[in-house]
Amino acid sequence: MKIKPEFDLIPEDGWRKKIYEIIYLSDTKAGRTFDIGLLILIVFSTVLIMVETIPIVTLQYYKEFYYAEFFITIIFTIEYLLRIICIKDRKEYIFSPIGIIDFLSIIPFYISLIFPVWHFVAIIRMLRILRIFRIFNLADYMHDGHFIVSALKHSSRKIYIFLLFMIIFIVIIGAMMYVVEDGKNGFSSIPQSVYWAVVTITTVGYGDISPATPLGKLLSIIVMLCGYSIIAVPTGIVTSEFRRRRSDLKCDRCGNDDHGDSARYCKICGEKMV
Amino acid sequence: MKIKPEFDLIPEDGWRKKIYEIIYLSDTKAGRTFDIGLLILIVFSTVLIMVETIPIVTLQYYKEFYYAEFFITIIFTIEYLLRIICIKDRKEYIFSPIGIIDFLSIIPFYISLIFPVWHFVAIIRMLRILRIFRIFNLADYMHDGHFIVSALKHSSRKIYIFLLFMIIFIVIIGAMMYVVEDGKNGFSSIPQSVYWAVVTITTVGYGDISPATPLGKLLSIIVMLCGYSIIAVPTGIVTSEFRRRRSDLKCDRCGNDDHGDSARYCKICGEKMV
Amino acid sequence: MKIKPEFDLIPEDGWRKKIYEIIYLSDTKAGRTFDIGLLILIVFSTVLIMVETIPIVTLQYYKEFYYAEFFITIIFTIEYLLRIICIKDRKEYIFSPIGIIDFLSIIPFYISLIFPVWHFVAIIRMLRILRIFRIFNLADYMHDGHFIVSALKHSSRKIYIFLLFMIIFIVIIGAMMYVVEDGKNGFSSIPQSVYWAVVTITTVGYGDISPATPLGKLLSIIVMLCGYSIIAVPTGIVTSEFRRRRSDLKCDRCGNDDHGDSARYCKICGEKMV
Amino acid sequence: MKIKPEFDLIPEDGWRKKIYEIIYLSDTKAGRTFDIGLLILIVFSTVLIMVETIPIVTLQYYKEFYYAEFFITIIFTIEYLLRIICIKDRKEYIFSPIGIIDFLSIIPFYISLIFPVWHFVAIIRMLRILRIFRIFNLADYMHDGHFIVSALKHSSRKIYIFLLFMIIFIVIIGAMMYVVEDGKNGFSSIPQSVYWAVVTITTVGYGDISPATPLGKLLSIIVMLCGYSIIAVPTGIVTSEFRRRRSDLKCDRCGNDDHGDSARYCKICGEKMV
Repeated sequence: MKIKPEFDLIPEDGWRKKIYEIIYLSDTKAGRTFDIGLLILIVFSTVLIMVETIPIVTLQYYKEFYYAEFFITIIFTIEYLLRIICIKDRKEYIFSPIGIIDFLSIIPFYISLIFPVWHFVAIIRMLRILRIFRIFNLADYMHDGHFIVSALKHSSRKIYIFLLFMIIFIVIIGAMMYVVEDGKNGFSSIPQSVYWAVVTITTVGYGDISPATPLGKLLSIIVMLCGYSIIAVPTGIVTSEFRRRRSDLKCDRCGNDDHGDSARYCKICGEKMV
Repeated sequence: MKIKPEFDLIPEDGWRKKIYEIIYLSDTKAGRTFDIGLLILIVFSTVLIMVETIPIVTLQYYKEFYYAEFFITIIFTIEYLLRIICIKDRKEYIFSPIGIIDFLSIIPFYISLIFPVWHFVAIIRMLRILRIFRIFNLADYMHDGHFIVSALKHSSRKIYIFLLFMIIFIVIIGAMMYVVEDGKNGFSSIPQSVYWAVVTITTVGYGDISPATPLGKLLSIIVMLCGYSIIAVPTGIVTSEFRRRRSDLKCDRCGNDDHGDSARYCKICGEKMV
Repeated sequence: MKIKPEFDLIPEDGWRKKIYEIIYLSDTKAGRTFDIGLLILIVFSTVLIMVETIPIVTLQYYKEFYYAEFFITIIFTIEYLLRIICIKDRKEYIFSPIGIIDFLSIIPFYISLIFPVWHFVAIIRMLRILRIFRIFNLADYMHDGHFIVSALKHSSRKIYIFLLFMIIFIVIIGAMMYVVEDGKNGFSSIPQSVYWAVVTITTVGYGDISPATPLGKLLSIIVMLCGYSIIAVPTGIVTSEFRRRRSDLKCDRCGNDDHGDSARYCKICGEKMV
Repeated sequence: MKIKPEFDLIPEDGWRKKIYEIIYLSDTKAGRTFDIGLLILIVFSTVLIMVETIPIVTLQYYKEFYYAEFFITIIFTIEYLLRIICIKDRKEYIFSPIGIIDFLSIIPFYISLIFPVWHFVAIIRMLRILRIFRIFNLADYMHDGHFIVSALKHSSRKIYIFLLFMIIFIVIIGAMMYVVEDGKNGFSSIPQSVYWAVVTITTVGYGDISPATPLGKLLSIIVMLCGYSIIAVPTGIVTSEFRRRRSDLKCDRCGNDDHGDSARYCKICGEKMV
């Protein structure tokens, strides 16, 4: 299965075309090496930003982190500039979501050079992690990713309705608990009680707020048993969609889409099905 | 697919018929605009009631909330009166569940005008949120909602039996934990232990009560592993029902209901299936 | 569908046969009334025993509870004696599980009359709740209950193996956490750490023990993500068994068992399928 | 279905062949008895190591545990030596994963005889529990185990992608919560916030870290509802794979693999399907 590059505006002159092929495509060996290198750099850089926020680490290794970030930003900047240089329609790239993420992941560092900023600005750099998707875009894995996303998309309407039911149920339960617990024991307002209801129905159960009165506990028991039965619904929706999509399989080679449930190979041309 | 209005008693004279069409139907542009306006007002009003219960907010913006509620109640009252005026059989509407909810969501405000009431009465207004269902009733989404509800209804008997098993299991586990923990560590009575058992089996796990003795922990481990395996049962019930209903699809246009598992279009007339 | 009574040894003489029909069968109106009465009494009595353990309640209403229990025990005793009198093979009933439960649910009261006992003995009376199953045995609901139980039975071998994997995984994780957390932060021994591992993998998450060191938290993250993926396995096992059993449907009337997936009525004789 | 022994290098001379058959095979009565004995010893020994780590127990029964461990290690050592003696290609066994586990589960004891070691070294002996798999390898249960493992293997690519999505989602949520909660209330660094995000999305919910600001709670609500919907995805993946594998059933006797969904017996030769 061939996948089109996102920006298929190949420039005509020699060196720009070569850079284009390395940066945007992954057919060639150089292209693939570039992708892997970029992937490692993104993961490394993300881990760095995360570790940087640990107070003790920052105090001790402030300089090392600064230089590492400096180095990474330089590389990403060069890559960003090359990406702009070697395509035809620059505007399309710069204002595409992918281009904005590329830009946002380098700019915070330069801002911090000019004036001292609120250190949370630095966390915008975390958006770099989204760049991973671009690389996987070109990879083999895309097919399975598509499968999951499209199954979710097709069952989305049912899931929306289910969520609407859930939200109304949660709001009413929250209001009831607020009344039952008389605004005490952490149920100090309806939004607070709604937070408790979500924590309970999703079976997360932090325990930062929990019912203290007998009536509140009784109501909780009912809510929990409901939540326990209800959890089956989204699973049922998604599972049945997954199953349906299986029998919708379309062969990539010959296009035949009339396959039985358990098809592993196209029954017309023998192509392996994913 | 056409959906009948809930109260199909159209009055004959001109202006009442027009109002009827705006309020009760959503075929016309005016009707749809009315529905969307009402939806926004309901959501806004619900959020207002919720936020109102936050202590700091009430203290600072008491007046603003009062006037907003005043304004909303006036609108809902006018709508309520119009609903009564423009249909034939008024009794049917007033004493229908939908009519009672409409009434209950405006009356608390008027009561609070006459004499100061326990402030929890005000929360009855939260029932307004149920009015959302009326609007969605008329919408496209209804079909999927029906799908979920009817799947749950058809598997309800199996779910009831499962819940009966669960409840008996929970009560016995609760009694055992009460004995094992010797009435200490929060397991002060059987109802309390049953509350713990529900919190545990549904995997909510607040941690407000948790076993402290070695034997209690051993029993908990068994209970948790059971709960983990048992959670598959309602999911299995609902999923298999969902799957079955898929193959029960009936075409809305030609009525043909003999479709394969993966039917997306009616095989007789080509109508798109939901 | 006809269900045989558990003890089909009908005595021949008149009054004993009549009592037998009331107590053991539910064909007649008297039999059904008896069953419903018994059901109410069992539920009432179970709730009573539960409430009795609440300290404040016992102090205030000691006498009332004593008399209620006295009254209930008398009725259950009479019922027990009638059950013995009106069947042929008494030994079979008395030593059957059902007979032993009947006996155990009345004896603690009589023991407490003779000498003061450890008050936990009284909780043996909770076994009464198991008597509910006898009543439902005779009811319509049995069919669906059988469905669930037999689906679980058929997938039990897969579930056993899954549990074996789980237990070994849990024990190893427990040992690792004990080492990683160095026996501190609640991970004071391997059994304690195994308890934590079960609490975590089943997603109960009390929070009475939770990792405190960075390495412990990292290990926990891996364990939680594993547990999250693994939960799909028992669900998958049970769901696929449920689906299989559907197509195994056997018509109660004509015995035909060749039905398609979505059969609601027997395709030979038109009997409704459950 | 016949299962080949792991090391099929049977020596030719008499007594070694007999020992080989007892230790490595389970066809003979002696072989099966040996397996069961070994299983009991492994379980007993594992429980011993676990209990040994409980502080009070160690203090009181130090000697008893020492002698039990001494006794068990001797048996395992004899078994290890016999395993080496009675096969042809010793290297293959010794350096196979199974051989290394066998070695690691006896060596810590001997090391502790020579010089006092960090007591966590003793926990390496816990690896003994993995030896259970060898015994089950030869047993009937293997078939179902294979079923589960191969279903997971076939859906692994989808699960990997799902986990990749999850991890990126978790990291971004963690970073957002760190900013929202302003590094307070336990969200002291991004790794810490990521730990919280995993605890929340997997619905474990310890409650050691929980949001305290209104905005943090709002974000948590969204995260929890997402997690609740997302949990359906791995279940859907695995369930649909389980279902597919069912129809892939291959008869052990005649090799026919064209069976319907609900096949319990091979339709060619009547062999029972698992």
